[in-house]
Amino acid sequence: MREIVVFSGSAHRRLAEEVCQHLETPLSPVRIERFANDCLEVQLQANCRERDIFIIQPLVRPVQENLVELLLMLDAAKGASALRTTVVMPHYSYARSDKKDAPRISIGGRLVADLMATAGANRILAMTLHAPQVHGFFSVPVDHLHALRELAQHFRQYDLSNTTVVSPDLGNAKEAAHFARRLGVQVAAGAKQRFADDRVAISAVIGDVADRDIIILDDEIAKGSTVLELLNRLRDIGVRSIRVACTHGLFASGALKRIGDQPDVLEIVCTNTVPIPAEEHIPKLKVLSVAPALAEAMRRIHNGESVSALFD
Amino acid sequence: MREIVVFSGSAHRRLAEEVCQHLETPLSPVRIERFANDCLEVQLQANCRERDIFIIQPLVRPVQENLVELLLMLDAAKGASALRTTVVMPHYSYARSDKKDAPRISIGGRLVADLMATAGANRILAMTLHAPQVHGFFSVPVDHLHALRELAQHFRQYDLSNTTVVSPDLGNAKEAAHFARRLGVQVAAGAKQRFADDRVAISAVIGDVADRDIIILDDEIAKGSTVLELLNRLRDIGVRSIRVACTHGLFASGALKRIGDQPDVLEIVCTNTVPIPAEEHIPKLKVLSVAPALAEAMRRIHNGESVSALFD
Amino acid sequence: MREIVVFSGSAHRRLAEEVCQHLETPLSPVRIERFANDCLEVQLQANCRERDIFIIQPLVRPVQENLVELLLMLDAAKGASALRTTVVMPHYSYARSDKKDAPRISIGGRLVADLMATAGANRILAMTLHAPQVHGFFSVPVDHLHALRELAQHFRQYDLSNTTVVSPDLGNAKEAAHFARRLGVQVAAGAKQRFADDRVAISAVIGDVADRDIIILDDEIAKGSTVLELLNRLRDIGVRSIRVACTHGLFASGALKRIGDQPDVLEIVCTNTVPIPAEEHIPKLKVLSVAPALAEAMRRIHNGESVSALFD
Amino acid sequence: MREIVVFSGSAHRRLAEEVCQHLETPLSPVRIERFANDCLEVQLQANCRERDIFIIQPLVRPVQENLVELLLMLDAAKGASALRTTVVMPHYSYARSDKKDAPRISIGGRLVADLMATAGANRILAMTLHAPQVHGFFSVPVDHLHALRELAQHFRQYDLSNTTVVSPDLGNAKEAAHFARRLGVQVAAGAKQRFADDRVAISAVIGDVADRDIIILDDEIAKGSTVLELLNRLRDIGVRSIRVACTHGLFASGALKRIGDQPDVLEIVCTNTVPIPAEEHIPKLKVLSVAPALAEAMRRIHNGESVSALFD
Amino acid sequence: MREIVVFSGSAHRRLAEEVCQHLETPLSPVRIERFANDCLEVQLQANCRERDIFIIQPLVRPVQENLVELLLMLDAAKGASALRTTVVMPHYSYARSDKKDAPRISIGGRLVADLMATAGANRILAMTLHAPQVHGFFSVPVDHLHALRELAQHFRQYDLSNTTVVSPDLGNAKEAAHFARRLGVQVAAGAKQRFADDRVAISAVIGDVADRDIIILDDEIAKGSTVLELLNRLRDIGVRSIRVACTHGLFASGALKRIGDQPDVLEIVCTNTVPIPAEEHIPKLKVLSVAPALAEAMRRIHNGESVSALFD
Amino acid sequence: MREIVVFSGSAHRRLAEEVCQHLETPLSPVRIERFANDCLEVQLQANCRERDIFIIQPLVRPVQENLVELLLMLDAAKGASALRTTVVMPHYSYARSDKKDAPRISIGGRLVADLMATAGANRILAMTLHAPQVHGFFSVPVDHLHALRELAQHFRQYDLSNTTVVSPDLGNAKEAAHFARRLGVQVAAGAKQRFADDRVAISAVIGDVADRDIIILDDEIAKGSTVLELLNRLRDIGVRSIRVACTHGLFASGALKRIGDQPDVLEIVCTNTVPIPAEEHIPKLKVLSVAPALAEAMRRIHNGESVSALFD
Repeated sequence: MREIVVFSGSAHRRLAEEVCQHLETPLSPVRIERFANDCLEVQLQANCRERDIFIIQPLVRPVQENLVELLLMLDAAKGASALRTTVVMPHYSYARSDKKDAPRISIGGRLVADLMATAGANRILAMTLHAPQVHGFFSVPVDHLHALRELAQHFRQYDLSNTTVVSPDLGNAKEAAHFARRLGVQVAAGAKQRFADDRVAISAVIGDVADRDIIILDDEIAKGSTVLELLNRLRDIGVRSIRVACTHGLFASGALKRIGDQPDVLEIVCTNTVPIPAEEHIPKLKVLSVAPALAEAMRRIHNGESVSALFD
Repeated sequence: MREIVVFSGSAHRRLAEEVCQHLETPLSPVRIERFANDCLEVQLQANCRERDIFIIQPLVRPVQENLVELLLMLDAAKGASALRTTVVMPHYSYARSDKKDAPRISIGGRLVADLMATAGANRILAMTLHAPQVHGFFSVPVDHLHALRELAQHFRQYDLSNTTVVSPDLGNAKEAAHFARRLGVQVAAGAKQRFADDRVAISAVIGDVADRDIIILDDEIAKGSTVLELLNRLRDIGVRSIRVACTHGLFASGALKRIGDQPDVLEIVCTNTVPIPAEEHIPKLKVLSVAPALAEAMRRIHNGESVSALFD
Repeated sequence: MREIVVFSGSAHRRLAEEVCQHLETPLSPVRIERFANDCLEVQLQANCRERDIFIIQPLVRPVQENLVELLLMLDAAKGASALRTTVVMPHYSYARSDKKDAPRISIGGRLVADLMATAGANRILAMTLHAPQVHGFFSVPVDHLHALRELAQHFRQYDLSNTTVVSPDLGNAKEAAHFARRLGVQVAAGAKQRFADDRVAISAVIGDVADRDIIILDDEIAKGSTVLELLNRLRDIGVRSIRVACTHGLFASGALKRIGDQPDVLEIVCTNTVPIPAEEHIPKLKVLSVAPALAEAMRRIHNGESVSALFD
Repeated sequence: MREIVVFSGSAHRRLAEEVCQHLETPLSPVRIERFANDCLEVQLQANCRERDIFIIQPLVRPVQENLVELLLMLDAAKGASALRTTVVMPHYSYARSDKKDAPRISIGGRLVADLMATAGANRILAMTLHAPQVHGFFSVPVDHLHALRELAQHFRQYDLSNTTVVSPDLGNAKEAAHFARRLGVQVAAGAKQRFADDRVAISAVIGDVADRDIIILDDEIAKGSTVLELLNRLRDIGVRSIRVACTHGLFASGALKRIGDQPDVLEIVCTNTVPIPAEEHIPKLKVLSVAPALAEAMRRIHNGESVSALFD
Repeated sequence: MREIVVFSGSAHRRLAEEVCQHLETPLSPVRIERFANDCLEVQLQANCRERDIFIIQPLVRPVQENLVELLLMLDAAKGASALRTTVVMPHYSYARSDKKDAPRISIGGRLVADLMATAGANRILAMTLHAPQVHGFFSVPVDHLHALRELAQHFRQYDLSNTTVVSPDLGNAKEAAHFARRLGVQVAAGAKQRFADDRVAISAVIGDVADRDIIILDDEIAKGSTVLELLNRLRDIGVRSIRVACTHGLFASGALKRIGDQPDVLEIVCTNTVPIPAEEHIPKLKVLSVAPALAEAMRRIHNGESVSALFD
Repeated sequence: MREIVVFSGSAHRRLAEEVCQHLETPLSPVRIERFANDCLEVQLQANCRERDIFIIQPLVRPVQENLVELLLMLDAAKGASALRTTVVMPHYSYARSDKKDAPRISIGGRLVADLMATAGANRILAMTLHAPQVHGFFSVPVDHLHALRELAQHFRQYDLSNTTVVSPDLGNAKEAAHFARRLGVQVAAGAKQRFADDRVAISAVIGDVADRDIIILDDEIAKGSTVLELLNRLRDIGVRSIRVACTHGLFASGALKRIGDQPDVLEIVCTNTVPIPAEEHIPKLKVLSVAPALAEAMRRIHNGESVSALFD
């Protein structure tokens, strides 16, 4: 296999740089130009010919800009005779459009998977997809990582003898159970219902949470409504302490501040799959890096070593 | 649009005949031959040219035989210049292979969707897919029906004033809630966990079930372990009566007898998406027909009328 | 052919409404939702089944948003069993990315053509593509209109006895010649050069312009630099009057004001392929509607009549 | 090229093990699970990433089970990032469905070739396809071996001075002539006719057979009717001795016993492309192994050496 | 279905005109231009939009010119929004390249089938393909006619009481048997062998030919060597009279004259699937027209009637 | 990467041989057979398996023969398990069919690009395509060389102190400007118009040409009408000397003789992308070889080095 070449789109250059440091590979430059007519043009500024190309681009805000930019980078790599192009997509936001629950709607998760393949993606490296079925939307091979190891390592610094991991939703309880097993603690889950008006209610918490140290774990936090609703339930029951953890810290509509303002929330932990503007950081926020994990997966993909062997 | 032509594979001819009665269209004959080398050959014995072909074939036991037979029928229809071929697949068993939860496994739900498209399927008419995301596995349009109307109509014959619909699993609670709303009754759900050894446990039932008339609702019942486990929980709590309902009555490994043998189960209700051998029928079993619903959907597909408008 | 159904994306609803008035067909509603994670979801709110769908969406600013929205609409139409989906794209901005004049760059014009086909476009109705070769980027049939008739009709109100049509660029002189022939007037062209720093110079004007009434004609005006440069040349030579005309009035970076501020420019004429915000309108601007032409082409496409026969 | 990894489906593990011994490569384990709903799931239990994968699976009885299993293995290999996947298919039973000799029938030979490509097959290694045209059904490269060398080597142990090779059918006489040339003996052929009721008659034997030692050679023996009919003709003429040889010993419907029961048949020779259950073996049967030939072809495919150079 | 539009390439305009007379449809004009650089350009000079297009073009000498011309016509029809394009190919010469009997050779029969599909062919109407397996090379539907009815009707004018149809090759004996059954006469076949140097020998004639009236029937006659060899065998045996018949009269290398010069050949009968230059006609030659059969098949294809029903 | 294997079609063997000398690689033999029915068959006579195949074939007269031959070679390479097949196409004549300037015409430039991809081309090495947009017609990567370096090196032998490079057409002035910059001389361009009857007129020459040494530069010279027209204009103005240069010397319809007969044309310079029959050579003609450039590009493609880096 020829050498590895890593590019980054505009979505999250800081993460790409960190990944490259771990890979001990330079981040190759990209020229992204916006014309007077608002169209983008991409130039990959390193030789791609017969090389193993990685393009790091989470589909984060502004999603449409980042998506089209990614597609143009894929097109440029294909036209430049890349041997193989892997999209490193630590956050795939369109994964949430995964079903047709109303007539005549788009299934964005499948469409965007097809668009990437059309533009030239030969494989995908993703992290904590919203539903495991989304894997099946891709016609190209997908390596699907999670960040439970990073999150677990962080929480091991605390006394966990009285701890319960709580999933806000029984749908995601499997991941919470994995996480609890890693930490050697108990697991519980909220019974969440989504109403027609998009309001969310948690009718019960299943499992032992009273008077315990709680770690709320979700795959992503966007507007934070579910977490806030769960906090109410936990307060009703009476818990000893609360920490909040997720992989994808989207924190839309002031969610970070709103959760951080809850006095009984000791800490909010997420990873850097999604960039958080410096001005939105709050003292309670702890951002863990997935760069070492992504770099290790990329190294293994490049070398043809098993990726699943690593991320058990 | 030229006229409609309906064929049936070997999987469930009785259902196909019933559908055709409702359509007031003859079921066109098919010759299916098995050669000495165990290969199948299919001959569609009615003119397909520029016609609107429907092939009725649920993917039921023997699944592999029925799948290959279906693919051969699709190939024959394509070669015979069909204008459009719709697979009417009341049960899509491979939908359960919908994620990659272990390394290097097949995702049969996506693969079989691709195989059908390769063989010539232009659209799919499915019923109650195991997960809504499976819709996104198909590159051809899918009309996705459910059987809640049929099930609801059946239960309306009873006094429902003290009734709760119970989903064995919070993952499927949404469908149970729809169903309960149709009946104007309450909903509850079991908190189900699947262990590594495939054993299933239901740790709690969320919602009001004590001393009530219970309708257990699931999308499918295969080995029945989940239902039996839920029955234990309901007995622990103490309920007034129990009826069991599902769309797909697979009833593998003697499940029908095992559930029927529970003295407190008054009735087992399913639909005819899956054929049940006459010798396995038991007095407590009530099979509702989805043939009218399938026929109406096929009529609307043929006439270009909205299918979603019908099955709200 | 089943009936026609017309949808509009967000790019230019006013044009879509006008087209529908000419077609005497309602503009069918679309719900476009933006989620907390910045992803879009589209719902086509009229039955598409076996119908002849037209989606009107010029690729104008914000281009990436409008493009992804269009792709989602195409996906929704395909999933909703549209018989045929035609993209009506009065302005295709990515057509300018039509060649690889530097190593490892994207060819956006071809890529976006492929993306539309992947998402479900069955045909394209375009207007005055930047280069005629762009037609060949599409794997689906393209009907390619121009707006010379509309522009010609406008200028016929003036005394044209002393008029010369001037193309700023010999590359586009063919279109200017067509236009001049329609008006029965002379044609001339600037010899334009583009420098490495994107600066533009017009070294000469070929043809008779001295002391004549000038109509400058270009396919599109973006930043307006070329027109301003041509104005300088024409002033050097000495002309009697100047009017400026184009099909696509992009008018980026204040171009409209800058050209309008030239005292010797009597009028700026463009069509409504690109929306111009009301607050940017200036008295010298005259916007002609291509809605009748688009509507007539759509009617002919729907009825299977020759489109080329019309737009000679 | 990365290392070779060999898997076997359920169709013929014994052959796969033998091939691996010749390759001096371990046969990598596969987990094949059948769920309660009769669906299969495959897990390849060795790292496939960027490796050169071979899947050994003749399409033998039960054909449909073995075919779907193969397709799932291909899907798993593709999803597991195999560099290249070669199907080693010593017997391709669907090759007999190679033409459309009745209206609206499936052409299984072409369909199954397309299904394998859809599922992820990058190339095929086949042996003695029923008709050479079947090669053209595949869109992926095919290496097409024959077993004449193995069969010839076996017969060289006998005194061949008075021997004639007889093809039951002039259609296959070319192969018989090749074989005879290898042995340095004469060739003859039956003039076979197939009647509407599938009965077979051999009206004449062309070539010198009277009072000679006969080797009947066919590509495959299924029900054995053709061979039995030829035996009758040969007895009419009067021959000295009879041996029967074929590549694919399908031996359906007791064919092996029926031919073996003919007292004047001294020996039945076939290869192990098709597994023969131990309980059906008879003393007159001699099974030659194609494992060395398959192993050598796989070694050459892996190393990029000419396969045609070997099997002249 | 919209109206039918028929075009003809340069290969055989006379046949196309005759077909159109039978269809009572005008043959629509095509402009085929050859540029100074030897490239061709095609313009279809009738509206194709949403119409049912038929392009009549046998792949006859000059094959490469006619093939590229056909591909350009297909491209033009696709670009012109044809609803469906059917290639009417009475002779498909590349069908003879149907197997890989030497290493690294092209399989032209499959390649050309794929090229036609790429260029825009939606279906094929073919006649007497060299091998029935060639049908399986096409990914689009094929209607496969034969000319036995036309040939039979011709021969019914003679006293057939003492007649035998002889196939020069047992490989084609099936067709000869069909033909004989139509005429109510006997059938026989030559046992043909092809040597390495492409020389052909017929070692025997199977069936009763001595002292009978012979009709030699082959699918095509190119250089005529096989027929001449068969004539020698028949003379050795002693027959009463000889007539020669085939579907495709290619008559290369003076074959027509060479066969016609045989004094005992009373008549040579072929169809007009291949044009025969007027100057090569000889008195013994009788050319039957397949235009009525092609026209009827086209009419049925257009109307969605069964084609197989007709050509039993 | 496995070793390089180079084949040549019939179009320009001399160039292929020269390229191979520069590559120090043998030109591998090809057997091209024409059958009695005028079909071609190709056999690549060197092992292609997992090798890096290059097929050298400019699309020159006879274009259709050379194109089909190329497609057959691509098919043979694909079937022979080539790792990657690059078409080396120094002249792509169909590039001139690049737009749809009349209704219902073929766009040969796009069609032939698609045909090559269907037949198995994985990449293209082209030279001086007629329009840069043609690059976008290809779905496979294209390396696009030019011959300006070779042409410049030739002209450096002369005193260039008074020289102007003249493009006959402003459309190609960009290339002429590049060329002039290489030589450090001035540039000018003709303002060319093409009339309906294909007659060409040059109305003016823009830039300083009077009394200067002129090098006329065009991408290709076919019938030579444009050059002859430009000569007239230059004579009107009065120039000191004239030399004519182009990349592709097609010289159709006696163009070479006609231009050579002009007494004031001192020299005609072209490259060997197109073969010129020995008998057409004239003393004023100087043919430069692009073989070293093609060989260097092929070497870099094979080794994965940047091609764009070389040909600035």
